[in-house]
Amino acid sequence: MASILCRISKTLVNHRLPPFTKGLIRPMVTVSWPFQSQPRDLSLPNPSWSKEMLQHYELYNSQCVGEDGKEGSGPWRRLPSYNRLLKFATGGVLLSKIIQSEARLFTRNIKIPGAGFEYVMFIKKSQEKCVCIFQAGHLLEGPPGHVHGGATAAMIDSVNGTHATYVCGPVMTANLNINYRNPIPLGSTVVLESTLDQREGRKAFFSCIVTSIDGSKVHVESKALFLSISMSRILGG
Amino acid sequence: MASILCRISKTLVNHRLPPFTKGLIRPMVTVSWPFQSQPRDLSLPNPSWSKEMLQHYELYNSQCVGEDGKEGSGPWRRLPSYNRLLKFATGGVLLSKIIQSEARLFTRNIKIPGAGFEYVMFIKKSQEKCVCIFQAGHLLEGPPGHVHGGATAAMIDSVNGTHATYVCGPVMTANLNINYRNPIPLGSTVVLESTLDQREGRKAFFSCIVTSIDGSKVHVESKALFLSISMSRILGG
Repeated sequence: MASILCRISKTLVNHRLPPFTKGLIRPMVTVSWPFQSQPRDLSLPNPSWSKEMLQHYELYNSQCVGEDGKEGSGPWRRLPSYNRLLKFATGGVLLSKIIQSEARLFTRNIKIPGAGFEYVMFIKKSQEKCVCIFQAGHLLEGPPGHVHGGATAAMIDSVNGTHATYVCGPVMTANLNINYRNPIPLGSTVVLESTLDQREGRKAFFSCIVTSIDGSKVHVESKALFLSISMSRILGG
Repeated sequence: MASILCRISKTLVNHRLPPFTKGLIRPMVTVSWPFQSQPRDLSLPNPSWSKEMLQHYELYNSQCVGEDGKEGSGPWRRLPSYNRLLKFATGGVLLSKIIQSEARLFTRNIKIPGAGFEYVMFIKKSQEKCVCIFQAGHLLEGPPGHVHGGATAAMIDSVNGTHATYVCGPVMTANLNINYRNPIPLGSTVVLESTLDQREGRKAFFSCIVTSIDGSKVHVESKALFLSISMSRILGG
């Protein structure tokens, strides 16, 4: 369900609001300008990242560089990640609502580095795979010392959903079927691998496997169905 | 997966550590005593609760009182909810680890009232039903203006899991199969109804339906399988 995030975030970042809008918007919303000049990309390393997380990040990041040495010409692409989304407004998108919104992406709502979801996603340019390296912080507890099944579900939905968005455009999660094999220890780093299994009209089928960082233990296996939607449906147009 | 929470929380609350343990524990862990004299029950109303949430809370809460006017003798029982859990320690449960733990239950990790998950659960004493009234805060966003599919999954896992714990004792989520029908608007209040469908040895099958507060709209329907486990498995014994 979080799947249209990336596209929207990119839109906000790449197509910055033109300067003239400032004058129009400020009196209307009576709040100070909330956008930083440079939104913080939360998928970049921070001091809370474990050695394993950093090593795996470097493994994929190095494959974003092509043989020509140019950033972005390799087979993988790192996906930036932000904590802001558009704000829903009945009847259409209102710029004032976008600016006023206090809403935050669920998986990026904890500000303390390392306490919640620490993750970075990479997508293969050929689009059949999307990989996420995920370090689970102490605020994600379910059973004592282990990650909550809902937190794992949130990461699976995010990775499959982001993958689906890049393959299909705007989508919504229609089904998520999760088999929990082995609990994930709190504080550990795991890898989520999303695979595009099939496309059928508006439907796109994905699977996801969550393993320990060395691949020796399977924590979770899941299947997901996403439906292509028009942006107007979700934005209330 | 969060399903053994209630039982553990109850254990911590009802069977308070005997006074003599204080002297034994303090030098060992070298931290100050972190337990408040009265842990805060987060399932009680707070100023962030909507009118709909309060009305529905009262509806079930009034049914916790029996015809004799006594609290606790009605057909329903309100389940208290805390933000602390035991801490996993390899080789067994160490009291020092319990006390040192900074871990927080995933669905209770946001301190600002109304910003994250606001919810209260009631279980029918006959145990076939468990109901949760859930108000989704602005930090749970997925698609613009709507609740993240992972946040919904977390609530379903929590309600089914709590229900399973009361029916079966300690359990782990084995499967969660979620059909998303209609997105849940951010800020709205919805009702989750968990039903015990079947028991088969160690297996217990549950379903859950998430509807708008007036029951007119189905947001999500799901099925779940829980497996009974021994506490020692999850506590590392």
